[in-house]
Amino acid sequence: MRILYHLPLSPYARKVRLALNEKRIPFELRVERVWDRREEFLEMNPACTVPVLTEENGLVLADSYAICEYLDEAYPETPLLGRTLGERAEVRRLVAWFDGKFAREVTSNLLYEKQMKRLMGRGNPDAGSLRAGYANLKPHLDYLGWLAETRLWLAGSSLSLADLTAASHLSSLDYIGDIDWSLNDAAKDWYARVKSRPGFRPLLADRVSGVNPPPHYADLDF
Amino acid sequence: MRILYHLPLSPYARKVRLALNEKRIPFELRVERVWDRREEFLEMNPACTVPVLTEENGLVLADSYAICEYLDEAYPETPLLGRTLGERAEVRRLVAWFDGKFAREVTSNLLYEKQMKRLMGRGNPDAGSLRAGYANLKPHLDYLGWLAETRLWLAGSSLSLADLTAASHLSSLDYIGDIDWSLNDAAKDWYARVKSRPGFRPLLADRVSGVNPPPHYADLDF
Repeated sequence: MRILYHLPLSPYARKVRLALNEKRIPFELRVERVWDRREEFLEMNPACTVPVLTEENGLVLADSYAICEYLDEAYPETPLLGRTLGERAEVRRLVAWFDGKFAREVTSNLLYEKQMKRLMGRGNPDAGSLRAGYANLKPHLDYLGWLAETRLWLAGSSLSLADLTAASHLSSLDYIGDIDWSLNDAAKDWYARVKSRPGFRPLLADRVSGVNPPPHYADLDF
Repeated sequence: MRILYHLPLSPYARKVRLALNEKRIPFELRVERVWDRREEFLEMNPACTVPVLTEENGLVLADSYAICEYLDEAYPETPLLGRTLGERAEVRRLVAWFDGKFAREVTSNLLYEKQMKRLMGRGNPDAGSLRAGYANLKPHLDYLGWLAETRLWLAGSSLSLADLTAASHLSSLDYIGDIDWSLNDAAKDWYARVKSRPGFRPLLADRVSGVNPPPHYADLDF
């Protein structure tokens, strides 16, 4: 069986789960406590991060960028990276935006500080990081809202990996109660559309011990 | 004419320059002082980062990931991402390793602290970051050396974007005198091989005002 090693709140693992679900590729989930640095896992991915995907033919894939590009090459039905060269460049620019810029400016300041530090026993969240994370969220939601208002989906006329990447980061932060959806209506409407896709349901059913999501987390009409 | 907006010491811009050179795609270089936040540049890339590539047909490409994937799709001669699905996953895993993990643990601790802060008028390098950067360099060079000893090139039997990515980060750090090549012989031998490729020469000729590289920087027999 195809196995995806993950952590429930990892946006990078969520992105791969959403891509697999959109493509209707069946897989099994295994939680990998990366901070245990399990030897067999380090052999699969010396960076010791999730997601890692193992295929039935023995192929081991590490890193969400490598996995998502692989999925679109190996399972081209329901393409998630766009069709023309220009569309593909735009999808990838936005994937890099959310996995790079947004992750650095928002996700790591909030999710890492509040959730990962606790799990890894690295102390309390840093107040300055939390402040920066909340302050950075607003302009990012505005940019996302602007994209969603000027296009059908974030990168153009089709749902793409750009939507799945943005939704992965936002859904992880939403789980820990850190997204104020009143900041931008267009961003909220876009998220409601992504959230109501069948492939999103398993993510909304996730629960992490010790952290309960706010009531609107799994609500499709939030 | 095809134009690449860059900064001489940006590893991400260097990666694209190396990819263009390996593919023998002609282009013009323009230095973009991203900290000036020039309006026309922000329109091309709202993230306000280099590299940005503009094609003669008007296509604007932002972000090194989007650009490198585009180059391999638009100019498939001299492929840089591998051939089989497994090879391609390995190339991309290593690109992510150097652009993500290495960048976070080494490049940003040294290059950002010593060079970018000065350019942007953001004060002196943080001593703790410098210490972390130097400490992290050793295990990374060891991993790179191990890859170079067990394979012809970092990701397998052909030169790939993995080599160009690693060499971009190392060459930027080498310019500011921060690579101790005596730490790992295999890594040094691999770098000497990449460095002596014709496509590397323009990078070795770069000079940044106010910072002179060490004598070995442009020496092919360092």
